[in-house]
Amino acid sequence: MNVETRIQDEFESNGFLKTIGAKLVKVEPGKVILSLEMTDNLTQQLGYMHAGAIATLADAASGLAALSMMPEDKTVLSVEFKQNNINACKEASIYAIASVIKSGRTLTVTNADVIGADSEKMIAKMQATMIAIDKK
Amino acid sequence: MNVETRIQDEFESNGFLKTIGAKLVKVEPGKVILSLEMTDNLTQQLGYMHAGAIATLADAASGLAALSMMPEDKTVLSVEFKQNNINACKEASIYAIASVIKSGRTLTVTNADVIGADSEKMIAKMQATMIAIDKK
Amino acid sequence: MNVETRIQDEFESNGFLKTIGAKLVKVEPGKVILSLEMTDNLTQQLGYMHAGAIATLADAASGLAALSMMPEDKTVLSVEFKQNNINACKEASIYAIASVIKSGRTLTVTNADVIGADSEKMIAKMQATMIAIDKK
Amino acid sequence: MNVETRIQDEFESNGFLKTIGAKLVKVEPGKVILSLEMTDNLTQQLGYMHAGAIATLADAASGLAALSMMPEDKTVLSVEFKQNNINACKEASIYAIASVIKSGRTLTVTNADVIGADSEKMIAKMQATMIAIDKK
Repeated sequence: MNVETRIQDEFESNGFLKTIGAKLVKVEPGKVILSLEMTDNLTQQLGYMHAGAIATLADAASGLAALSMMPEDKTVLSVEFKQNNINACKEASIYAIASVIKSGRTLTVTNADVIGADSEKMIAKMQATMIAIDKK
Repeated sequence: MNVETRIQDEFESNGFLKTIGAKLVKVEPGKVILSLEMTDNLTQQLGYMHAGAIATLADAASGLAALSMMPEDKTVLSVEFKQNNINACKEASIYAIASVIKSGRTLTVTNADVIGADSEKMIAKMQATMIAIDKK
Repeated sequence: MNVETRIQDEFESNGFLKTIGAKLVKVEPGKVILSLEMTDNLTQQLGYMHAGAIATLADAASGLAALSMMPEDKTVLSVEFKQNNINACKEASIYAIASVIKSGRTLTVTNADVIGADSEKMIAKMQATMIAIDKK
Repeated sequence: MNVETRIQDEFESNGFLKTIGAKLVKVEPGKVILSLEMTDNLTQQLGYMHAGAIATLADAASGLAALSMMPEDKTVLSVEFKQNNINACKEASIYAIASVIKSGRTLTVTNADVIGADSEKMIAKMQATMIAIDKK
């Protein structure tokens, strides 16, 4: 299976990514971009996009980027992530651009920059650890 | 305004917490508990609850706990959070139990334990920094 | 080998812990306490204890706590840690109290509270991930 | 005062950076590079450089990079940092290359890549939050 198809399949089997409306924009080995349009379903108390929605996008992009470097009999779980919320998100849509920093046999370290589509401002930055597990 | 009403109002003004189905369970000064029932809308690729949904609940509980210690003319933004995903979440519902570790004039440090309602297992643990900002 | 001896041996084989002057205070399965006396060798620019010295103590205590739950043919490496610096450290000495949150076959999640010996204030809090590796 | 002199002064007033042997390599607005030579004083139990020594270098570089963007009546404290330890450090020396991601009035977000001088491998990566405080 080519890497695009594999990442597409994994992406589509995530119920929560459908719920928030995430879209798969780009896949290459070690790099995945997801996008998310702002809606009233994603707000926090001031009307900005909720940091949890942003974290969902960044974590998913990071996991898929990690998966793109793993053998085909593996799937990926998120061990931990740390996100700085850098600019309040007033954008019509955002991109999470995730890259693999180090791809190990067990653990993968990733970075994701979340960027506003209009302003090109950094909305958030996530540093994460992913783990490869066997598909049953 | 008493602290329960204030936290309830802030909670209800979050569109994304409605989207995921979060419920406000308990409020006391410096401590907030939220709950979340598992549905097909919240899954990742293996059918477990998505780490992003868990992070949304933990971040929201942490922010509300921080807010409960702030003056009434303030609201709260999440500066950053770090979450370890500790056990895969196969629970019918989870609780995020957030506590204030240090409440400063500007910054508040919080801890949130996310616990499975049935197993009482730790699902995730989040350490976060919140900032008080003026309500306009 | 009993757990106290094993942790003591690992502690003493750390050159950097000797350099900073760390002491091993207490060991029990899943919990390790280290202490550190303030000296002019450990300061940052305002004369407080440097966050890097505090992180060294907290990381070491966390790793040793994780090791205390691992089989005897394993040693431990620090995968990642996140530390909040909560109160400026003006203490004559501090304690890092590390506990295992989840001990897995490969990964262990830990929490360390760093407390001032005099004030009993929280100086820092670290959430970390440790990995078991084979001793050669 | 020019930014190089200011950062140099702040660097030299850190006792702990002297203790570990850190050197200031490069300063420009928003970017600071520190280096550290491996010695027996900096080891962990396997003879590699201790993650706490690496964190000290990365935190210091991050704080100085943040300071380089602040007004002259401010100094900097580290609010929190998160470090992934990416490759065991067997290098004769390392560099911590810190950059400002977002410089705000109160908070600054930084990234530091720690690189082996020989291998050019990534040893560690730190994402951190710094705060500007008044010099008395």
